[in-house]
Amino acid sequence: MALKEQVEKKAQRASLAAKKLAMLSVNSKNYALLVMADALEEHMERILLANDQDLANGVIKKLGKPLLDRLMLDTTRIKAMAEGLRQTMSLPDPIGEGLGSICRPNGLEIQKVRVPLGVIGIIYEARPNVTVDAIGLCLKSGNAVLLRGGSEAIKSNMAIVEILTEAAYDVGIPVGSIEFIDNTEHEAVNVMLKLNKYLDVIIPRGGAGLIKTVVENSTVPVIETGTGVCHTYIDESADLKTATEIALNAKVSRPAVCNSMETLLVHEKIADSFLPEMIVALVAEHVEVRGCEKTMKYDASIVRAAEEDWSTEYGDLILSIKVVATIDEAIEHINQYNTKHSEAIVTKDYNNARKFQKQVDAAVVYVNASTRFTDGFEFGFGAEIGISTQKLHARGPMGLEALTSIKYLIFGDGQIR
Amino acid sequence: MALKEQVEKKAQRASLAAKKLAMLSVNSKNYALLVMADALEEHMERILLANDQDLANGVIKKLGKPLLDRLMLDTTRIKAMAEGLRQTMSLPDPIGEGLGSICRPNGLEIQKVRVPLGVIGIIYEARPNVTVDAIGLCLKSGNAVLLRGGSEAIKSNMAIVEILTEAAYDVGIPVGSIEFIDNTEHEAVNVMLKLNKYLDVIIPRGGAGLIKTVVENSTVPVIETGTGVCHTYIDESADLKTATEIALNAKVSRPAVCNSMETLLVHEKIADSFLPEMIVALVAEHVEVRGCEKTMKYDASIVRAAEEDWSTEYGDLILSIKVVATIDEAIEHINQYNTKHSEAIVTKDYNNARKFQKQVDAAVVYVNASTRFTDGFEFGFGAEIGISTQKLHARGPMGLEALTSIKYLIFGDGQIR
Repeated sequence: MALKEQVEKKAQRASLAAKKLAMLSVNSKNYALLVMADALEEHMERILLANDQDLANGVIKKLGKPLLDRLMLDTTRIKAMAEGLRQTMSLPDPIGEGLGSICRPNGLEIQKVRVPLGVIGIIYEARPNVTVDAIGLCLKSGNAVLLRGGSEAIKSNMAIVEILTEAAYDVGIPVGSIEFIDNTEHEAVNVMLKLNKYLDVIIPRGGAGLIKTVVENSTVPVIETGTGVCHTYIDESADLKTATEIALNAKVSRPAVCNSMETLLVHEKIADSFLPEMIVALVAEHVEVRGCEKTMKYDASIVRAAEEDWSTEYGDLILSIKVVATIDEAIEHINQYNTKHSEAIVTKDYNNARKFQKQVDAAVVYVNASTRFTDGFEFGFGAEIGISTQKLHARGPMGLEALTSIKYLIFGDGQIR
Repeated sequence: MALKEQVEKKAQRASLAAKKLAMLSVNSKNYALLVMADALEEHMERILLANDQDLANGVIKKLGKPLLDRLMLDTTRIKAMAEGLRQTMSLPDPIGEGLGSICRPNGLEIQKVRVPLGVIGIIYEARPNVTVDAIGLCLKSGNAVLLRGGSEAIKSNMAIVEILTEAAYDVGIPVGSIEFIDNTEHEAVNVMLKLNKYLDVIIPRGGAGLIKTVVENSTVPVIETGTGVCHTYIDESADLKTATEIALNAKVSRPAVCNSMETLLVHEKIADSFLPEMIVALVAEHVEVRGCEKTMKYDASIVRAAEEDWSTEYGDLILSIKVVATIDEAIEHINQYNTKHSEAIVTKDYNNARKFQKQVDAAVVYVNASTRFTDGFEFGFGAEIGISTQKLHARGPMGLEALTSIKYLIFGDGQIR
């Protein structure tokens, strides 16, 4: 069968399954999640063997160490994936939730209820845990899922999908609810992006390149996720100890993730008292600092930041620093260069805190806390399918609700217009 | 200036204005809406003169009567547009509304608040009242708007936009909040569809062709609106008088609009008692009936419905009728051919009513009422920017809330992770 037909067939199966899946009781979905979690742990050996193949191929392909680490599974990581499914099971079922009702003067009763989106396409890169998370969250929210994972993790993903689908279908989840594209040609992605007939949304999870491709080429609605050029602005009134702790945490605690800080903005009035110690602390954590002209005078090792630095998501131990004359200059800089993800101000000034929160355009705006908290678990959502950086449908960390739509049920007794 | 730069410049101006507009108080926005409504009525003559030019051009271009009617403005219609602005003024301001807050164990307080989307692109066809509605709704919801109207109404639209912007900017609405593309080349639309840098969403309003072009070519997120292949299913238990009234109303009360019925489905057990009178009533209202084989036997004038009839939005006094053996066949037919807009069942059976509402995939599912009620005003939203037929972000009639996004404000006291 040609590639196009293969992908279409899977999407069509998912679309048919979605109709049945939307009708399932919460008990059926929860039981399946439990059985699926157990199956993952029972078949650990099978997953590890498949993962070994991916790792061996990765070494041959000369993948970098961070990538190999993200790809690597061990018993701890597989147990964590199973635990994730059990946690998803314990979340409240969003489907069928009443979102209000209206009684119209003509007697029509309009009820607004939460329903699944239908079929969710997910295009992602190396990490095999995304496979498990996505399957669990889509199932819990009554959606069928069409997965397209990266070629690096293909063997691991296939083993995981086989184990999970066997377990799920065995306990009554409609066949087709979980579809995985095992063809690793890039063309498979292009086919997916045009399947408006079967897919209700596509969520890309991965690097900026993948997300750009999907946004530019998909005719299916997309939820853009994940790229984060996040800033921390140290106001002139900031407590300097708090400021140092927050900035350091935002940069070094996990530099590869999207909620890490990429640019530090510092009010010129406190630059002299704040920056020298801050830079020492950063350098001690092996951070490469690039700075504006004013920043450069604080340390001879600082490279001049180029224009493109201000819009770069380093995802690494690199930080750009800029000294600003006013809070307005800080806000303007952020609104020009950010990806609307997460931004923070450190301040003791009430009015500046409010101004920053109101005027900065981002999903999450912090006062006196690290940007690293932008995360579904940290928000108490109990799960996360990604972090939306667009304003439509979902913004910020996306939990189960982001995978739902609504429907109006209208109860009449013969009303005409 | 080249077309591309012209359009980009307008979008950029809108984007800058949007930042200021988002900060305006509800009083400033309401006062502007009032002044704008008055300005429309004061400058009626200017609008009517411009409209005369459009109508004259329309006659030369040999536009059809329905199109000329939609294009035509008179004092009553202009007063209605002004009244629409006053109604929008009286709606509650959605911006800043608190949507819940969470206190996390680490002391972080997370507030979820409603914010404007930013810049909304609207691409629409002939009716000049859309210009006024869109400007009013976008302003009230704190969004800047970039409008692209059809060439038929260009003079009317330009006059309206000039009057409204003069009035609005005069009372402090940020310049750039209302931008109108006065270039009628189709290329202007193509430029808009790629302006991800400035536009947060594009809403196409018009025929299926326009919507298809936008969905297929836009890299900016789109809210799909308006195409409606709506069904009414007459269950075997239906009260036949109610069924006739509802079906007739759904077809003939305003056949050109998207919530009108295009296909009538009838349970075979009541076809003999229901269809003959129904068809007489339809024919008396000048409806052309196309039917399945079973339907054809009820009247010699009935043409055989072709496969494509079942997926056609006639927008006219034409109806396709199909006799079905079961409610399941009706539901299956609907889910195969509908546009997920509005669907109705007429029944006295409790279980069938529930089944139909659960299993039919549409924005609005009626029991014992006409599909014609799918409308922002009929839902009590007080306004309507269109009817979404997609599941992402907004579904069904879209009021002011559909023009908003959310933002998380986080209050900390030094939290790090």
